[in-house]
Amino acid sequence: MISVKLKNGNSIEVPFSTTCAEIAKQISSGLAKEALAAEINGKVVDITTTVNADCSLHVVTFNEEAGKKVLHHTAAHVLAQAIKNLYPQVKLAIGPAIENGFYYDFDSEVPVSSDDLEKIESEMKRIIRQNSALERFALNRSEALQFAERLNEPYKAELIRELPDGQPITFYRQGDFVDLCAGPHLPYTGMIKAVKLISCTGAYWRGDSNNKMLQRIYGTAFTKQSELDSYLAAQEEAKKRDHRKIGKELDLFSIDEYIGQGLILWHPKLSVVREEIEMYWRKEHRRRGYEYIYTPHIGQSNLWETSGHLDHFAEGMYPKMKMAAKDETENTYYYVKPMSCPFHVRMYKTRPRSYRELPIRWCELGSVYRFEKSGALHGMLRVRGFTQDDAHIVCTEDQFVDEVNNVLDFALDINKAFGYDKLNVYLSVRDPQDKEKFIDNEPVWQLAESTLEKILSDRGIEFKKDIGGAKFYGPAIDLKAVDAMGREWQGTTIQLDMNLPERFGMTYVGSDGKEHTPIMLHRALLGSMERFVGTLIEHYAGAFPIWLAPVQVKILAISERNHEYANKVLKVLRNEDIRVEVDDRSEKVGYKIREAQLGKIPYMLILGDKEQNENVVAVRDRKEGETKTMSIEAFRALITEEILHKR
Amino acid sequence: MISVKLKNGNSIEVPFSTTCAEIAKQISSGLAKEALAAEINGKVVDITTTVNADCSLHVVTFNEEAGKKVLHHTAAHVLAQAIKNLYPQVKLAIGPAIENGFYYDFDSEVPVSSDDLEKIESEMKRIIRQNSALERFALNRSEALQFAERLNEPYKAELIRELPDGQPITFYRQGDFVDLCAGPHLPYTGMIKAVKLISCTGAYWRGDSNNKMLQRIYGTAFTKQSELDSYLAAQEEAKKRDHRKIGKELDLFSIDEYIGQGLILWHPKLSVVREEIEMYWRKEHRRRGYEYIYTPHIGQSNLWETSGHLDHFAEGMYPKMKMAAKDETENTYYYVKPMSCPFHVRMYKTRPRSYRELPIRWCELGSVYRFEKSGALHGMLRVRGFTQDDAHIVCTEDQFVDEVNNVLDFALDINKAFGYDKLNVYLSVRDPQDKEKFIDNEPVWQLAESTLEKILSDRGIEFKKDIGGAKFYGPAIDLKAVDAMGREWQGTTIQLDMNLPERFGMTYVGSDGKEHTPIMLHRALLGSMERFVGTLIEHYAGAFPIWLAPVQVKILAISERNHEYANKVLKVLRNEDIRVEVDDRSEKVGYKIREAQLGKIPYMLILGDKEQNENVVAVRDRKEGETKTMSIEAFRALITEEILHKR
Repeated sequence: MISVKLKNGNSIEVPFSTTCAEIAKQISSGLAKEALAAEINGKVVDITTTVNADCSLHVVTFNEEAGKKVLHHTAAHVLAQAIKNLYPQVKLAIGPAIENGFYYDFDSEVPVSSDDLEKIESEMKRIIRQNSALERFALNRSEALQFAERLNEPYKAELIRELPDGQPITFYRQGDFVDLCAGPHLPYTGMIKAVKLISCTGAYWRGDSNNKMLQRIYGTAFTKQSELDSYLAAQEEAKKRDHRKIGKELDLFSIDEYIGQGLILWHPKLSVVREEIEMYWRKEHRRRGYEYIYTPHIGQSNLWETSGHLDHFAEGMYPKMKMAAKDETENTYYYVKPMSCPFHVRMYKTRPRSYRELPIRWCELGSVYRFEKSGALHGMLRVRGFTQDDAHIVCTEDQFVDEVNNVLDFALDINKAFGYDKLNVYLSVRDPQDKEKFIDNEPVWQLAESTLEKILSDRGIEFKKDIGGAKFYGPAIDLKAVDAMGREWQGTTIQLDMNLPERFGMTYVGSDGKEHTPIMLHRALLGSMERFVGTLIEHYAGAFPIWLAPVQVKILAISERNHEYANKVLKVLRNEDIRVEVDDRSEKVGYKIREAQLGKIPYMLILGDKEQNENVVAVRDRKEGETKTMSIEAFRALITEEILHKR
Repeated sequence: MISVKLKNGNSIEVPFSTTCAEIAKQISSGLAKEALAAEINGKVVDITTTVNADCSLHVVTFNEEAGKKVLHHTAAHVLAQAIKNLYPQVKLAIGPAIENGFYYDFDSEVPVSSDDLEKIESEMKRIIRQNSALERFALNRSEALQFAERLNEPYKAELIRELPDGQPITFYRQGDFVDLCAGPHLPYTGMIKAVKLISCTGAYWRGDSNNKMLQRIYGTAFTKQSELDSYLAAQEEAKKRDHRKIGKELDLFSIDEYIGQGLILWHPKLSVVREEIEMYWRKEHRRRGYEYIYTPHIGQSNLWETSGHLDHFAEGMYPKMKMAAKDETENTYYYVKPMSCPFHVRMYKTRPRSYRELPIRWCELGSVYRFEKSGALHGMLRVRGFTQDDAHIVCTEDQFVDEVNNVLDFALDINKAFGYDKLNVYLSVRDPQDKEKFIDNEPVWQLAESTLEKILSDRGIEFKKDIGGAKFYGPAIDLKAVDAMGREWQGTTIQLDMNLPERFGMTYVGSDGKEHTPIMLHRALLGSMERFVGTLIEHYAGAFPIWLAPVQVKILAISERNHEYANKVLKVLRNEDIRVEVDDRSEKVGYKIREAQLGKIPYMLILGDKEQNENVVAVRDRKEGETKTMSIEAFRALITEEILHKR
């Protein structure tokens, strides 16, 4: 008998050479039905694998990343088989599982287009219905090579040639189809209950543009049709909410390759949203004891040498500007800043500081520039120029815990104001296996990590540890906002800096009259204005809440007779600094309503003879779509109240 | 008889060879007393010059720049004579009149220090009392050279050698002193009624660091002692108000050579002032129909090629950033922006525009970077990095005059809000002698200049023409604010751009359905935040009005018993977003008052047992220095009202 230790701590005894599938059945018949693979001693294997020694075991289902990967990987094999059935001349390359699905690359003399996907998908479904078993077998390298050559698969042969000799090379067979593969896989193709091919594209063999261009088909697969349906619906919704699409429709922003990639032009409408956020942000910061500062966007190289950026972060910076060419007295380089920290530190050092001044909390909406490969850029979400909602807190050791708690309170409040009620919390710590990536100060790291962990525990906040997620200069608490689509966005970060205070020689005179090195926190609440507002567009699908809406009220005059009355109402509202526009074009009112609705304007006031005679307004809410009549004063009170309370 | 035409249009008849001095006497005996020189047919000459033909003539007095220059130049000769009397071994170099005074450079083996200035000044006064006549005489070049060599003045000899042959070379003699000089000069040294030597310094011969270092003495001179006295008092006051001095005393800003010259770090206190100005600025812009936008701080070289900056303005830009080094797909250069215009133009071009959308008024607080030689930098007033309060107005021809008038209204209002009630207005036009400096479009220039002139005349605004002051791309209206010291500061500029719309191909579809090129105005109201706030510091001598004051109220607790009450008052005021601090240190109240007074804090609330028992506050105004008692609510109402109305 063999002892199998389960994740919940229990152990069960099974006979030698029992399969994982049988063990799953022994645990519960429900689990056995969902079992896709098993994890033995931390390694994911086929569910048909037998256990031959004491071990720890976990049954893997589709609810876990590992389970999804196994199912998607098998679906990739099914895709390859379907392609080979339909296009026998095709040479197969590789077909891995990826996030949310899989792909397969292949070399075909006949081009395969998106029109062919339906046919291939049907063939996949036929293979799935056959419910063939997947069988694993191993060959030595020369056997494997012969086998690949007999199959007439030159790409597979190339891969095999590069594998180390002396180790078994595994293949998986399903029906009459065999593929080189390390696995693991599902035991039967029929366990794929829903499959969908998404798109096809070209891809270089091994991603190298010197190689041949192959064809790639993307797909996804699930254990239930309903899961596929909701995935596709969510994809459809995400496409509709894509900030790049909405940004264009509502004239919110643009990126101009003539100016440069990854640099955002904020059009007037989106600039209103940003201004409102910034004003709110500034006011909240002042109320919470922060002081605002302004620092330059460029600085000399010695700044970035001292900070360590030129050693650790040079590839993330824009190229240097060589001053010697301009002024021979300045034989130096300038850089556009990738972060504002060194400026704040130098400002701190303009005069001696006393413990009485601490904590110092300096905030800045600092525009920084970081070089990202053009391939990594994505709308407003991944850019090269962005404005951080930055702050640095300089404090004593005694003040540290309070300051972190203050930032956490602040972060929760500000996220809530934007409708992000759910936040996923991460504690980013060192990877103990990879300590040389982090600055070397063992006792301080231990104290810092355990202090941050204690702060979270004391507040009763659930969090995950992100092992290796710490910055090189210290651990961090990261809050990720979960949007209306359930997606996670990096927002707040609270980082302890164990590097700069020392490198720049920051000090304060303590109550003991001696010099001490202060503690420094970096933090951003929203992250960057670009990413935050980009995600807000998707979160609200362009329909900003009233306090942020670029145009809050559109007044629609029914006929030219009502223009004067429309302008009277406009004046009343504009006097309250409400953002209001009149549509006095000679279009039909139905057309004007549709246009205002498409423009996602919170309120329409429809003004005709009746409203004019009674001195009232007919109010149409973009959400409700029905019209309520009220006095001008009542509407003014209603909207002012909603703006004030950020409804 | 000769006919002499005066500036007022009258003509008088004088005999051949009458001196200008005699003509001045004939005009009025008062004028004759003040006459320092004369201007004959536009050229300034000695007042002793005789007129020998019909001419136009103007008698020059100390009230004019030309008169000051003549007096200062003669004072420079007196300085040179005094130096030679005291240090006979000295070799003289040059001694011109400059703004507000004069200097003389000389080569002395004995170093002359500021301790010697009094002695030299006394010798000057002795020479002035002698009231020697200044006599002009001319030599040919070889005679002049012999003369300089006989005087043992090698620098003068060097200058003479470089003068063209064949033209008479003039000298001026006063008593036993002779100097090479083109003149003109006063007729008698005694006409200098007040003289003061200011400082001494080193200066390279001909400003070239390869040459010998000479010594330089600066001085000033007047026609009345009282003028000198007020000049020195104003200088003293200016020194006290120097924003660099106050900036340090009040911890307002710093410049850090480690970061880079000409780059301002805005410390928390001055950042409050800037934030308040920016908030006011944004609100006023929205009310006046402007839309705010945000654009990046860097842009690719093709942007600056199209705009013409790389042709016309390259030396004013920071060096290029070469992207090829970072990403081989981007074989281009980036530049930090020296102005925001091309970004606004490209945003305009993101979609077709209709005449219905015009005028477009886009504003931005755009931080720009321009390379200035380090020698030209001066605190916050002449910097390398600054934030323009920029706007671009794109309009049709029909809208142009209204738009310029709107900007003028706006400029007058916003200047008034900062206590600048007096503005000097300039119309900056082309120099007709130097047309190749300006873009070539004669009819448009003429129309543009005359239109701007008519706008000013129609408003009844007095203005001066700044000939040659136009930008290369069009004429401008410039408003210069006059500060509490009577000094003039460049602020508002309204510039017509006849270049960018064409170069970037900006168009709009008119009501005729055809494409037209719009008119574009650049404008800044304050100029730059750096220069504007720098001048505000000097204008207010650091005592900002209450709406701008970094700390508006300081609460001084008399004893520890009053701390709780002090914090209660603090809370009431902070709830109204009033910037208030408590001084609860265990210092004497007199000490705390003095410190708050030095900190230029508008209101102090002095709270002791009496105030606490009666639930009142004792209010001390920084201006009046006496204390008034009132209820907390009365003070709250008073200060809120003052902030709201920007008293």
